[in-house]
Parts: sequence; C-alpha cells; structure tokens
Amino acid sequence: MYFPSWLSQLYKGLSRPIRRTTQPIWGSLYRSLVQSSQRTNPEFNSFAVRTNTCGELRSSHLGQEVTLCGWIQYRRQNTFLVLRDFHGLVQVVIPQDESAASVKKILCEAPVESVVRVSGTVTSRPAGQENPKMPTGKIEIKVKTAELLNACKKLPFEIKDFMKKTEALRLQYRYLDLRSFQMQYNLRLRSQMVMKMREYLCNLHGFVDIETPTLFKRTPGGAKEFLVPSREPGKFYSLPQSPQQFKQLLMVGGLDRYFQVARCYRDEGSRPDRQPEFTQIDIEMSFVDQTGIQSLIEGLLQYSWPNDKDPVVVPFPTVTFTEALATYGTDKPDTRFGMKIIDISDVFRNTEIGFLQDALSKPHGTVKAICIPEGAKYLKRKDIESIRKFAADHFNQCSLLGKLRLECADLLETRGMVLRDPTLFSFLWVVDFPLFLPKEENPRELESAHHPFTAPHPSDIHLLYTEPKKARSQHYDLVLNGNEIGGGSIRIHNAELQRYILATLLKEDVKILSHLLQALDYGAPPHGGIALGLDRLICLVTGSPSIRDVIAFPKSFRGHDLMSNAPDSIPPEELKPYHIRVSWPTDSKAERAH
Amino acid sequence: MYFPSWLSQLYKGLSRPIRRTTQPIWGSLYRSLVQSSQRTNPEFNSFAVRTNTCGELRSSHLGQEVTLCGWIQYRRQNTFLVLRDFHGLVQVVIPQDESAASVKKILCEAPVESVVRVSGTVTSRPAGQENPKMPTGKIEIKVKTAELLNACKKLPFEIKDFMKKTEALRLQYRYLDLRSFQMQYNLRLRSQMVMKMREYLCNLHGFVDIETPTLFKRTPGGAKEFLVPSREPGKFYSLPQSPQQFKQLLMVGGLDRYFQVARCYRDEGSRPDRQPEFTQIDIEMSFVDQTGIQSLIEGLLQYSWPNDKDPVVVPFPTVTFTEALATYGTDKPDTRFGMKIIDISDVFRNTEIGFLQDALSKPHGTVKAICIPEGAKYLKRKDIESIRKFAADHFNQCSLLGKLRLECADLLETRGMVLRDPTLFSFLWVVDFPLFLPKEENPRELESAHHPFTAPHPSDIHLLYTEPKKARSQHYDLVLNGNEIGGGSIRIHNAELQRYILATLLKEDVKILSHLLQALDYGAPPHGGIALGLDRLICLVTGSPSIRDVIAFPKSFRGHDLMSNAPDSIPPEELKPYHIRVSWPTDSKAERAH
Repeated sequence: MYFPSWLSQLYKGLSRPIRRTTQPIWGSLYRSLVQSSQRTNPEFNSFAVRTNTCGELRSSHLGQEVTLCGWIQYRRQNTFLVLRDFHGLVQVVIPQDESAASVKKILCEAPVESVVRVSGTVTSRPAGQENPKMPTGKIEIKVKTAELLNACKKLPFEIKDFMKKTEALRLQYRYLDLRSFQMQYNLRLRSQMVMKMREYLCNLHGFVDIETPTLFKRTPGGAKEFLVPSREPGKFYSLPQSPQQFKQLLMVGGLDRYFQVARCYRDEGSRPDRQPEFTQIDIEMSFVDQTGIQSLIEGLLQYSWPNDKDPVVVPFPTVTFTEALATYGTDKPDTRFGMKIIDISDVFRNTEIGFLQDALSKPHGTVKAICIPEGAKYLKRKDIESIRKFAADHFNQCSLLGKLRLECADLLETRGMVLRDPTLFSFLWVVDFPLFLPKEENPRELESAHHPFTAPHPSDIHLLYTEPKKARSQHYDLVLNGNEIGGGSIRIHNAELQRYILATLLKEDVKILSHLLQALDYGAPPHGGIALGLDRLICLVTGSPSIRDVIAFPKSFRGHDLMSNAPDSIPPEELKPYHIRVSWPTDSKAERAH
Repeated sequence: MYFPSWLSQLYKGLSRPIRRTTQPIWGSLYRSLVQSSQRTNPEFNSFAVRTNTCGELRSSHLGQEVTLCGWIQYRRQNTFLVLRDFHGLVQVVIPQDESAASVKKILCEAPVESVVRVSGTVTSRPAGQENPKMPTGKIEIKVKTAELLNACKKLPFEIKDFMKKTEALRLQYRYLDLRSFQMQYNLRLRSQMVMKMREYLCNLHGFVDIETPTLFKRTPGGAKEFLVPSREPGKFYSLPQSPQQFKQLLMVGGLDRYFQVARCYRDEGSRPDRQPEFTQIDIEMSFVDQTGIQSLIEGLLQYSWPNDKDPVVVPFPTVTFTEALATYGTDKPDTRFGMKIIDISDVFRNTEIGFLQDALSKPHGTVKAICIPEGAKYLKRKDIESIRKFAADHFNQCSLLGKLRLECADLLETRGMVLRDPTLFSFLWVVDFPLFLPKEENPRELESAHHPFTAPHPSDIHLLYTEPKKARSQHYDLVLNGNEIGGGSIRIHNAELQRYILATLLKEDVKILSHLLQALDYGAPPHGGIALGLDRLICLVTGSPSIRDVIAFPKSFRGHDLMSNAPDSIPPEELKPYHIRVSWPTDSKAERAH
C-alpha cells in the first residue's frame, strides 16, 4: 500500500475529471472521508488537547467520551452545529436544558469559522436522522462542555466558495484558501509523495540527502539568477537555478549517491505558471549510465505513486528527439492519444496539385498529415475553418504540426470526444537531443542545448572536433502527458573535454568555472543525474489547473506575495550595509540628460 | 534498530573522544567497516555499473565474479593496490603474467586517487597474509580486466591528511575533503538522522511537510535579513530568518501539524561558527500546549537518535530560566557535571571579612560558591591564580559564576579529570523565560526576549497591563550539553492581544504585520511550535569541532565560499534590471565631502 488509506479514501470522493472541475465542496466529500482502522495510519491526536479528530468518529466510538477541536462549519436552528477539522466533519448537538445554558450560549453565539473545543459523548443519531453521505453520519456528539478558543470575524467570503473566487483574492487570503478541501488534499498528497520518494532513495537505494548552498557565485550566462548583495562593496551572491555544480562536486567528493529536495530560483520576470522559487527532486550518482538513471526514476515514480491511481507501468517508452519531432511535432509529446504526424510525400510524388508540387520540389520538402479519428463525425464546418486559420497563423513555424495536433485534440474534446483521459498518466523518455544549438543572436556560434556539463553521445565524440552541430548528447527528458517533468544527463567527467567544450566551442570564460574544472582533474568519477520538477509533477498528479494550487504560499505571476505584499520597499539606511543604492527610473533619466 | 547497521558499525571504529581527536584515518577504521547482512541495509549497487562496493566484500563472496569502481588509495610494489569507495577498502592483486600486460600497465601507471573499474574474482588471501584489522582483510581481488575511468593529477596533499590541514585549504578543496572518512560519516549520519525525524513526524504522527517561501517581505526589526532586489525599482524581497510567520499562517489555514527541514538565512557579518544560511527542523502544531510540544520533541530525538550511542532517556529534566541562572549562571547550562552555584550568604551573615560584609549589606547582596570536586587534589597553585584572574577580568558581569564554572571544568579536564564525557548527551528544557527585556539602547523601552508572537505565561497575562517587565512567557529552550539546540513557544492566537503587544508594548509598526493580525482575526486556532538547529545538533552528535564539519559546502567565517570564490563581482549591466547601483566606499567619501 503506497499511500495512507485515509488520504486515498479522501481522494476518491473527488469527481474524476478534476482538471476541469476545480471546486470540490466539503459537502460532496463526506462519503470519502472514511477513516480506515489500518495500522499504517499516523496518530493524529498525539500530543494534542483533543482525543479524536472530527472526521474519524464512527459507530465504533459509541459511548466514548471525546474532546474535539475544530472550526464551526455551520449551525442549524441553534440545535446542531457541524464542526470541521482537516479530517472531516461531525455533527454536534447543542444542549437545550437550563443547566447547560453557558454551553448553549457559547455554541449558539460563536460566528461561523470560530474555533471551539467541545467535550461530550459519541451517541447514535435518532432513527431516521442518519446521513449516509457523511462518514460520521451515523453518530453525533452530545456536548457536555464547550470552550470558545477563538472567535472569527466576518469572513470576506465562505470557505467553500473559495475556489470560485478570483485567484488574486485566494492568494490575498491564502490562510483561508488553505482551509479548502482541495488545498488540504493537494498539500497533504505532496507531502506523502515526497516522503515515499525519500524512502525509496534513502532507505532502499542508499542515496544521501545532502543540502547544498543557495548563496553561491553566479554561473556563466546566469542572467536569470537573483542577486543577493553582501556586506563587501560590489560583491554579490547569486541564488542558483539548480544545485548542478554542487551535485557534480559531491560526486568528485565520493558521496556516490546524492539526492535533495532542492529549492531553486529563477528570475524570469512575469511568466504565467512559473514561480521565482521552485522545488526539484535533485539526483546525482556515480558509476552510472543513462539506462541506470532511467531505471532509477521509473522505480522512484512507481514507488511513490499515489495508490488511488492506476499503478505506474515501467519501463517507460523512449523516443529520440528526432523521432519525437517527426511524429508529434514537439519534444514533449502528449502520448495519451495518437494522431501522429505521418509523412505522405510518396502518395503525392506524382501529384498535379500545385502547392504540393511546390513543397515537394524543395530540398527536404515533404507532405505530412495528421489523421483525426472520427473527425468527419465530430468536427463541424467551423472547426475545419478554425483549423485552417490556425495553420495559416502558424505558417512557417516548424512546430506547426505539433501545435495543430493539440489544437485538433482540443476541438475534438470540445465536441465530446475523450482523447486525453485526466486519470491516465503517460510517461515518455525523450533521448538523443542535440548537444548544441545555434545561438539565437548569432547562429554561427553555438550554445549548449541544455547546459555545458552535458556529456556528448559516445558515438558522436569525434563530431565535436569536426561538426559539433551534429553531435548528440547524453541528455534525457522525462515527459508526462505533454509536459516536461524532468531532465538530466550523463555529465562530462574529463577535464580536458570540459575545457574544450567551454573554451573552444562555447567561448565561455572558463575562469568562472575554474573550481569545477580543477575538481574534474582530481579523480572525478563518471557520473550522471536528473532533476524532476516537483511542483509540475504534483500539479499533474492532482489534476490542478496551476502549479500555484500545489504550493502553500505561491507568488502571483508578477512575482508578488499578495498576502504580505512582498517585494516591499526598504528604508535607504537598511541598504547601506550592502553598499547599494536604488537607481530610480527618474534618476537615470536625469543622468541621461547630463 | 534505529540506524543502518553499516553506518553504526562504521562509527564504532572512531576512537571515543572524537571531539578532541578529529583526524580519523581510513587505516584505523578498517575493522569498523563491517558490512552487515541485515535486510534493512539499502541496496548500494542498484542502477550502477558495479556489482559490489569495495567495502562489502567478505569470505562469503569467495569465487564470485565482481566489478568494482573506486579510487586508488595506494599501490605496493606494483603487485597490489588498495581500492577505496565510500564503503571501505579492498585489496586488488595486479596480474603479473604477460597476457595481462595491458591490465598491469593501467593499474601500475594510474596515479593515486585515480578512478578505476576492475573486474575479477574474489579469492582468499594466501595463508599468513590476512589482515585482521581490515574488514575485507581475508580476501583479495584477482583482476581480469581494468579500465582507467579518470586519471588524477597530483593532489595538493593526501586525502588522509586532510583533517590536519588548515581549514581554509580544506574549504578550498572541499570536494577532496569530502572524501575523508570523517566528512563521509558526518554527512551520511546527518542524512540518516533527518530521515528518521521525517518518519517520526510524517509517518507516525501525521505531520505534513510543507515548503514555505524564502523570497518574502522583511520582518519588523529584520536588520539581519539578506535582501534580494526585484525587477521593480526600490522593491526588495528578504530572505527570512525562519518560516515563523508562514508556519503560524498554516495553522490558521487548518494544516494542523506542519514540519519542514527549513533553510534559513541570517546576515550577521563575520561570526565564528555561524553560517549565513543554516537549517532548522521547523515544527508547528495546533491545539497543543507546552508539555505537548516537549513530549513531541523528546519522542523525536529518541526515535532519530543514532543507535551506536546510548539511547535518549525521556522525559528531559526541566528548569526555569530563573533556576538555571541561579544554579548554573547561564540559561544554557551544561548539565553533564555538577559544580552548581550555591548561595552561602547565611554562612557569612555574621562574618567579619570585610568584602563579604560589603557584599551582603547591599540590596540583594549574596555570597555564592562553587564547590570544585577534588579541586585540592587536581588543581595546582597556578590554576588557582588563573581562576582568580578570570574572576577579576569578568568582575561585575552577572554571568561571571557561569563562566567561572566552565573555566574550572576546563582546568580540571586539563589536569586529567573527566567531567564532560563526550559520549554523554545531557538534554535540558529551560522554561519560564521573561516575555520582554529592556532594550539595550534604551532600557526604558521593551523588546521581545524571543519574538513578538510568543504567548505570555497564562498566570502572567494580567502583568501585561501593569508590570509587563515581570511577565513570563510560554517560551521553552532545549539545551544539550551546554548548547541551545532548539527553542519555541506557544504563540499568541488572539488578534487583540497580539496588537496590544506589538503596538502598545513594543511600539512596532503594525502595518508590516497586518496580514498576520488579520489572519488571527479569522479563526486562528491555539498553536505552538519549536525549531531545532540541525547543524548544531548534528555537530554535537558527531562530536565535530565546528558546524562547518557537518555541512557539505559551508562558508568561511567571513561568509565566503573559498572553493568558488563567492560572493563575487557582478558586471554593472547585470545590476540594471534590478535598479540598483553599487555605492563604492570612495563614492560615499566623495559625497560626504560635498
């Protein structure tokens, strides 16, 4: 059993295509909040002033004296109230007799979402009043004592309506949004899945969890790195985009098998569905080849996969970068459905259709097609028009067919066909990427397709000295349902080769990496690794519309914390120790005027 | 069994008082590298191109064909070499027959610390050549094939001598230092102990591992927070000193039981044995009181404690802040030994000794003593002199007696008495701290003794409105062998009380915390928590002289990464997107001249 049953039970109540229905309501989840009696469940009441959680009580608890703590979900006619904690809901009977007047007063006057502690007896509900939709629906609590732990002011809106509100409002009141079932589920599933990954790596396969610094030196071309001013004038730390250098240095240091759930930083300005800080499952090992890393990751995902989903089948299929582009028009294909791109040039070799003749007469000219299954049945005339328009709009983009494939899938799904089952998880390895790409600014120069530490494909090493553009790398990407969720490579462990690639091919300043080059000279073992994007992975597993739904306190797409209003102004005197001044845009205009 | 036996076996080879002998040599540890056959051991060879680790081979492997990867530790007369990996050492026989000339060439010519892969057969050593000090000492490897995976250039010094070198050199070549037994042991123990803590919190007690942001807003009085410029002119993130606000907001969000192995940041400039980034085991829970948190932590340490040490005995003793000061002269007493401070005023009430009369005649005047056990036997005349001088030097410091107690302990140990057994771990809770302290700059104003979210002692709430200086708090410190390794408190969950303390008593600008105050208004549950300093804890457990010895890539005491030379200069054009300029010290002089 991979997952605590209470969590998976909790999940089953979610309607299936959650990707499109993101407003689960506590009420609809009653039946799913089944507390299992399995011994693998954690003890939720240890060290606390309660005896039980609200959600765990059943007929088996009848007659027990319990103390519960929770939030008032709602109250009915001053006779009942429903108390909520993370685990579920329970009905509490408000005593009506004179001797319990003070208890009645507390429970009737406390506003909704106030926090109370109640003690009383678990009793059967009167016949006919059971609620079969509620896991605790056979019982209720006859209260003896009650205490108002904290009164709640009037909320900006009801907790159950949170998912319906604008995201800005949800982020501003994140601490209220977190009370929603969906956020509780997402964060708890994330915690559990990471814990299983740790067990697999650390306990089963001898990996060492090592923390690496985040205050580091800038990396070559690290234009997306946040800076941290130090107390030395003009000297800055950088917040690295990944522990890449450190994990390679750990291999040189003989640590052999490293992993870390690593916080990484990337300053991309405003980008939708990106976060300035994000988390990756960062892995590196020595004496390994590409297939070794792939098997490790397949086992990792299989082991940590939530057991309320279909088990992960391994090994994952593999396609080369070239095949992926030819077949799906993208290097991160969604393989939950077919509609592959097919070369039909031969069919038209002798055609008299002018534009096809033109295409085929050009060097490397081809005619390609996508077969839309039952397209004639599902697609309407205006759909065909929109496909035609889409194609025209994206004309001359080599990724056109890949985009068209997804566009057609969207259209088919709009018309009721299920192409991309949200409960299906289709993993795919993409391998044999090119080692270099032409630089965008200057296509005669090369840049690393991934990063400069990626080892060339063993068969292509000779090409580095003749036609480096043609060299393939030992980089591999892991794709899930059309999303890149991880990437890694076998690294260069030979200092001479690393120097040649950095200095001669990439024309980088090697001084900035002298420590790494020196380390490779001192007995670096062959090594390789991978990093999985945890936020994206959990987002896909939970079917969330955004990675912000699987992060407790995310930034807005502009990089703001809408709750606390970060980033914020800093008094000039607090900048002094760091020897920096703000260059106000007006200042710089004034300077230019000089 | 708490700890993988291979790790604890490995440990037992360390001579006991490691605090003082920090140069463990691989050679002396042979006998401790016993590979247990227990099934709890992780699989170290999965996914790798080796069949076995060097350190695991025994007579039970005789006749097996094995492939090993490792570093050449040393070579003897071109007939043997010793191969090392993280797990231990094994003897490899260099073949001498003509047909294996290429193998011989590789193994004889590769410099020490080169990385090789060898394949061959596990055989018995010839009679009389066994090495009982070496766990693999009964066997050797008859090599058939060998491959030089990476040649090593001449090292700046031998790996086994690393601990003897200056720390600056060790930090500069950290990737070599990491190959030392002690660093391997420290980092692996750290990983294991944290893993056990996670199991305890997550699997046994239902805590949720939640990541909180490190790019946040500055906190009141956050003068020690690093700044991170954003792309908005004049707006900065801060790197928080702890997830304090977030963990409280998680409680408001109903997450109930939170933990995180949290990266924290503190810019204290140059401080010995402090790091600009450090790690804490960060915990918060709802519906808990002080004793609940204490029991939780006692259980946590008991569960995660390395099993090569004496088990942790719970509950830990508790003293109040006042008692600690009176008895030990410090709020973090080392309770491994007695020598308590005793009030002997009554003995001297009628004394005629002038300076004692003087002391006793003053208000609150007391005479206190420390009894040094067998002092007369152990201490020499010059020791007494040095005690007298120490007392004179620290005259008028209220912590004098506490310091004197430790000074005397040092002296006794120099003379051969064992007072502070390095294998003894003496935990202590210190409770009932004052809630406020007078501000250093202006003693009429108050500042929080710990932080402004600390709840007052239930018996002292009325004092907040009359004599706040006298109010005790619900803060608790955990002390181990005279070091503070953790601290926490029950928090204020009442918005009105929090506002009163912030605005009226502390005179803080409450605007900067408006989100937290608002959160308390919306049904915040009673909650409390704690943070353990992981670096310090592991430092004490491993008996390391510095926290730098339990961190893979620490900064020097000036905050430098000596390996990569961080912090570093940044080209002015890379500062532009952040709207900052460097204020060079010469500039500011020029400005002052205006």
